[in-house]
Order: sequence, then structure tokens, then C-alpha cells
Amino acid sequence: MAKIGKLTILLLISSVEEEKELVKKINSFGYKVCIGKAGTMKSNEIIAAIETTAKREGIFRTGCYREEHALYHTTLNALRGLCRGEIGIGNFLRTIGVKFVVLRGPLDTTQRDLGEWISVGIYGTVGAPIKGFEHEAIGLEINHI
Amino acid sequence: MAKIGKLTILLLISSVEEEKELVKKINSFGYKVCIGKAGTMKSNEIIAAIETTAKREGIFRTGCYREEHALYHTTLNALRGLCRGEIGIGNFLRTIGVKFVVLRGPLDTTQRDLGEWISVGIYGTVGAPIKGFEHEAIGLEINHI
Amino acid sequence: MAKIGKLTILLLISSVEEEKELVKKINSFGYKVCIGKAGTMKSNEIIAAIETTAKREGIFRTGCYREEHALYHTTLNALRGLCRGEIGIGNFLRTIGVKFVVLRGPLDTTQRDLGEWISVGIYGTVGAPIKGFEHEAIGLEINHI
Amino acid sequence: MAKIGKLTILLLISSVEEEKELVKKINSFGYKVCIGKAGTMKSNEIIAAIETTAKREGIFRTGCYREEHALYHTTLNALRGLCRGEIGIGNFLRTIGVKFVVLRGPLDTTQRDLGEWISVGIYGTVGAPIKGFEHEAIGLEINHI
Amino acid sequence: MAKIGKLTILLLISSVEEEKELVKKINSFGYKVCIGKAGTMKSNEIIAAIETTAKREGIFRTGCYREEHALYHTTLNALRGLCRGEIGIGNFLRTIGVKFVVLRGPLDTTQRDLGEWISVGIYGTVGAPIKGFEHEAIGLEINHI
Amino acid sequence: MAKIGKLTILLLISSVEEEKELVKKINSFGYKVCIGKAGTMKSNEIIAAIETTAKREGIFRTGCYREEHALYHTTLNALRGLCRGEIGIGNFLRTIGVKFVVLRGPLDTTQRDLGEWISVGIYGTVGAPIKGFEHEAIGLEINHI
Repeated sequence: MAKIGKLTILLLISSVEEEKELVKKINSFGYKVCIGKAGTMKSNEIIAAIETTAKREGIFRTGCYREEHALYHTTLNALRGLCRGEIGIGNFLRTIGVKFVVLRGPLDTTQRDLGEWISVGIYGTVGAPIKGFEHEAIGLEINHI
Repeated sequence: MAKIGKLTILLLISSVEEEKELVKKINSFGYKVCIGKAGTMKSNEIIAAIETTAKREGIFRTGCYREEHALYHTTLNALRGLCRGEIGIGNFLRTIGVKFVVLRGPLDTTQRDLGEWISVGIYGTVGAPIKGFEHEAIGLEINHI
Repeated sequence: MAKIGKLTILLLISSVEEEKELVKKINSFGYKVCIGKAGTMKSNEIIAAIETTAKREGIFRTGCYREEHALYHTTLNALRGLCRGEIGIGNFLRTIGVKFVVLRGPLDTTQRDLGEWISVGIYGTVGAPIKGFEHEAIGLEINHI
Repeated sequence: MAKIGKLTILLLISSVEEEKELVKKINSFGYKVCIGKAGTMKSNEIIAAIETTAKREGIFRTGCYREEHALYHTTLNALRGLCRGEIGIGNFLRTIGVKFVVLRGPLDTTQRDLGEWISVGIYGTVGAPIKGFEHEAIGLEINHI
Repeated sequence: MAKIGKLTILLLISSVEEEKELVKKINSFGYKVCIGKAGTMKSNEIIAAIETTAKREGIFRTGCYREEHALYHTTLNALRGLCRGEIGIGNFLRTIGVKFVVLRGPLDTTQRDLGEWISVGIYGTVGAPIKGFEHEAIGLEINHI
Repeated sequence: MAKIGKLTILLLISSVEEEKELVKKINSFGYKVCIGKAGTMKSNEIIAAIETTAKREGIFRTGCYREEHALYHTTLNALRGLCRGEIGIGNFLRTIGVKFVVLRGPLDTTQRDLGEWISVGIYGTVGAPIKGFEHEAIGLEINHI
């Protein structure tokens, strides 16, 4: 059995070498997957990066407000997890360098009757705009789509 | 190279079988490790469970306010990540069933000159107090100790 | 043209006499509707009251986690609107006496191709636990279901 | 009997045609009223729009800090209700198109001995900066002045 | 010149011996003053303690909702300052031992034409429920009354 | 006996004339001290001002991430206290004119065995960008370093 959140996390912390195999496996479980990277001091840029990547990779249908709405709120809450509370990056004088992952599919691979869900994960470093002055953070949200 | 946050996350999502080997490996990198489980509707119970386990397992020195202070704030922020914003469990009519991990050691295994850090990770399910009506969530915070 | 949010608000502020006609009209637009009342000092009781009423009135299918998940998050955010920020009632030494409304149907009556949405509205008084020491507040959230 | 909050909400959701009659009626109850519109991605612009309109329409005395202070905090909390929690518009990659209403007068028309109060309501759409990708939201706060 | 906030802070950090002289001086500037103490793990108890003390000492008129409303919101925000963000004491497994001060009078002693204001200050220790495992915190809010 | 928080507050509310003597006394207790001023509408500018001043005055070692991390989180929470909740200045259409103080040393002068702590205090006025339309606010946070 594999769960959508754990699969998202596994992909987030995998190396470039591991990614290819892992994506293939996650696809075989019935999930659509997309992966991207972003380095920014602006909250809206990380939201836009996730949305653009998910759209380009066909995770959700362009022009479908329902699905865009689901992705948006999932992303916003994943960002809350990453920021551990109030959302803020550059306005709090910090910068983020992150990898993000979006999965779409069943809540877990043994319960396919619960419909489609979306999972957004963000993992990387948050810190001062000085090299090495940073530590890791992770954010994850799961929503129905 | 291994980083304190990624090691915490790996341990959080590992199965009982994988745990033993992983803990041994993480110990060999110079980290103190403790693992626990909690199912609760009260924020203070999850904080207490993490503190009690960390104390019993010797992660921090009993009677040392500095270290208890570091663990407390790290735990509170990991909980903020898990709750994706405002902290609330039973008062928001939800329940959590989680595994938690505390690591103490270097920020990453290649940079041992940055002193000791603490990492608190919480992973599990958050949901309605109805079986199966729940999805995964994760929270992580890293702090100097 | 009528929109799901405005219809919810109209029902929230209608008198007992106006309600019956209004519900009939909103039903004819293709919405499922339920209405309830709650007086409490506990956040979880207002969430439970909305969920129980919506289930009993057939707004969402019992045993369907997807729909329960949609209703839960919609309710939580409507409560955030009512509390104007951080959720808190009795722990902030205040009490609420409110009417709540749940609608399920199209986002607006002219755009039926956007699928089904849910709207949760809460309106009433928030104040000290002293008669007359209170003023009105409203909260509304709209979500895809 | 009419209450300051309900009157504010009624005006918020009224059409241009209904507004004129409604304002006249609300004036006759002893309220000062102002109405405005704003479309923006910046929190400070909606606060400024409400303040400027209220000043121009004589809702509060220019140069009176007490009254400006009351209006400011009332507006900030109405915005919290609209945003359902943390205040954020463009920094969360969303835009708002809203109508706002400010009322000044009694808490309710039958209790004129409770002094003067101010009510700020904001209603409209919040959404992605894409036409049609938006839903309604409302925020209301009431304060003593 | 003396300002309402600075006078509140001075009183908060004064010793029992200094208090008497200071209160006399602050009274002579035209302020009503009350002082109290509270040790609790519950947010609503500290709010109630401040309200009860202020009422008993004649800081605001019993039965006057306007003034009670002003004091309530001032207290709630002072508590936010003390908690440095989200309000939480026992639910975050911490306890507070504080002194509180309420002042009512001019914003500053040279500008008496700005009407009456209220200032609520809270100062003391916040920490684990273990003796000595605590540090100082302060919260202050100023509002028109 | 003197405590780190109370000493920080005393310095925050002292006049330019009193400062010199007070700093000398606080130094004699074993604290490193720095004082600065900032007027801004941007959260990141006040954070940067405190960090730059503390670095220049030798409060923490340049190039030491641990200490910079301690100062950063202490400053962020002091700012939360000043803002009484959510951090926001110009985005909430307000401006601040503040004095800030950083102390480094024992938690209190009688308990030197608890290690080194850092205290960040911010005090001044918060208000509309109109002269005189402002009132005082204070924020304080204490952290282990």
C-alpha cells in the first residue's frame, strides 16, 4: 500500500538519480506527477511556479476553475506548512530554495473508491539571503479535486 | 552528505522494519535520535509526548532550561507545520494519529563546525474523528540548541 | 442571475417568515439547502452542528469522505471569517449565537458548467457572555465539492 | 428593528437600482452611509479606498485621530473576514473586486442609548487574476466610535 | 510630557515599593489606573481577571457595552503581544504568571484634545509548568474608548 | 536582581540622557548591549536594521549561523509582539517609528548557570502615515543563543 502524501514526500527528498525510477513507479500506481524547482523571496512566485508547472505537465485541465481552485488552496496550505504559520518570505527578510511536487490520484493505492485527490509538497531550504545561513523546511497539503 | 531535516523525514516515513537500520545509520552520523507515537485531540498532549520521550531517551539534559526551551519552540513550530497555519486539533473537531522523531546533532554531516541543532518532525494523519476520514500531514522544524 | 454566495447571505439575514419562500426559490435554482442555529462557546460545537445538519438534510452523502472533507474546510474558513482572523470563542471569553446556512449547487445560476460547489455561511452575534453585550458578525466560504 | 450589521450586508448585496432607496431608508434610521468600489491586488489600497471614501462622504471628521483609529481597525478586521484568516491578496497571487459600505450610527435602531458605532462591510469576488476564476467573499466588522 | 503607553510599561515593571508613588503621579496626570496579578494556563481567565479588576476599580462603567467592548479588544490584543502571535497558553503546554495594568486617560499628557484612550499592559513570565523554566514577555495595546 | 527582559524594556523607554548611565550599568551586569532607531513601512527593513546594528556592535559573531539564527527568530517574534498578531506594516497602510534594543547575557543576574540568552525589544509608535495619528506599541522576545 502507498499513500499520496508519503509518495509526495519520497519524491521531494529523492535525488535527481532516484527521481526517474520513482516517478515511473508512482505513475504505475495511477498518479499523475509533476516536479519543479524555485528560488524566490516572493510568496506569489512560488504559487505561480507550482501552478504553471502543473498546468504544463497536464496535472489539471487548463480552463477548469474547479481544478485550479483545488490546486490553489492546496498550494497555499503547503506554503503555510513550509513557513510554519504565517506566510512570509522576503517580507520577513528570508529566501527559499525549494523543490516542489504535485501528485494527482487516489488517497491511497488500496482505496480507489474515494475519488481523486491532489497533493502538493514543497521541500528545501529557508534562510537568510547569505549562503549557508539556512536550514531545511517542508510543507504538504492534500485536498479533494 | 546527509542533512538533519532529510534524515528526520526519512525516519518519519520509514516502516517499523526499516527503522532499526536507519536509526543505527543516523546514530553513526553523530545524531541522537528518538521516535514516538501519539494519537490525540489536544495540542498540549502531543507537545508533552514529544518532550517526555526526548527527555527519557536522553536527547536533552533534564533540568536544563536552555535545551528544554529549544525543544519546546521547535516542537511548537513543527506542530504549526502539521496544522498548516493556526494550531488546533480537537477545538477544530479533528484528531491526529502521528509518529514523531527528534534528532540532535550537526545541521549536515559535512559541516560539523556549525554546532549542535535539533530537528522535530511529526507525520501522520489528521482528520475527522471517523475511521478513514483523514489524510496525511507533516510538520518539521529545525532550531539551534 | 443569482450567485451561490449572495443566496447564502440572503438566507442568513432573512426572517423566519421570509425563509420558506426564499428556500423554495433557491431550490428551484438547483441548490440543496439547509439551515440551522447554534449558541455556543466552543468552536468544535459549531463545526459539529453544521456537519450534522448538512448530513441529516442530505446536503452531502454520509460515508463519503471527499464531500465531508469539502464541507469541513468550508466550515472552518467560514468560522475564520466570523472570528475575523484566529478562530476562538470561549477561550477568548466570548460566546456566539448564530444561524448557519449550507448551499450546494452551481457557482452561479448562469454558469452550470463549472460543476458543483458548496457554500457555508454563518451569521449572528458575537460577544461577552452578558445579554446585550454583543454585535453582529458574518463568515462565508465557498469551495468546490 | 434594524441592526447595523444587517443593514450593511443588505447594502453590500443590493444592486445599483436598489441602492438609492435603501440608502434613503438607512439614512432615515439615523445612519451616515458611504459606498464605494475597488479592484486591487494590494491590501493597503483597499484600506486606503475605504478611508478616503469615508472621509470624503463625511462619515468621520478629518483630522480626528480617534475616529480615524476606529475606522482603521474596523476596516482591517473586515479585511480579515474577507480573506478568511491571514490578510493577503497579491502576495497570495489573488486579486479582489469588491464593493464596500461604511455605516455610522446606533448598534440597532431600538437601542439608541448605546452610543455611536461604525460598521465596515466588504463584499465581492476573490480569485485568480483570470476572468471567471473567482468566487464570492464577505467581511464585516463593527466597532465603537 | 508623558505618554499613556510608557506610563503603562513603567507601572508594569515597577516593584511593589515604587508602585504607590507612581500611581499617585499617574493619577495626577489625569489617568484612572488599576493593577492586578494573575497566574493561569487559560486565556479566558486572564481576560476575565483584567475585566473584573477594571470594573471593580471603576476604570469603566458597569453596564456600558461601548466601554466593555473597548476594554475587551484592547485586552485581546495585549494578550496577542504577550503570546507573540497566536493566542495560546495551556493548549500550548505553557503557563503565565503576570502583572497587568489598565490606564484610562489622554493619549499623551500634552494633547488632551484627542479624547479618552485606554491602555492595557501585561508583563510577567511565560514558560513550562516547571519552576524556573520560563522567561519574561510583555504585551501592550492602546485603543480609543 | 535584574532580568534580561526588564533591562531591555528599561532601555527601550529611557530618554537619550538616561541611556548612557543605563547602558554602563547593564554592561556591568555582564550584558552586551546595542541600541538603534528605525522608521519604516517595511517589515524586512526593521529586521535588517536590528541585524546590522547587532552585528556592527559585536552582539553576535559575523559568520556564525547559529547566532544569526537565534537573533533572526528573536527579532521576528519581537515584531509579532509589536504588531500584536500577524506581522504587517505598509501592507496594512501603517508606518512605524521605533527604537530597538538587543541584549546578550544571562537570563537574570542571579542565575548565571543557565547560559547565554538574547533579548530583542522594539518600542515606538505605530500608526497612519499622518503626523500624530499614531500610538505606542512594544514587542519583546527572549531566546537562548
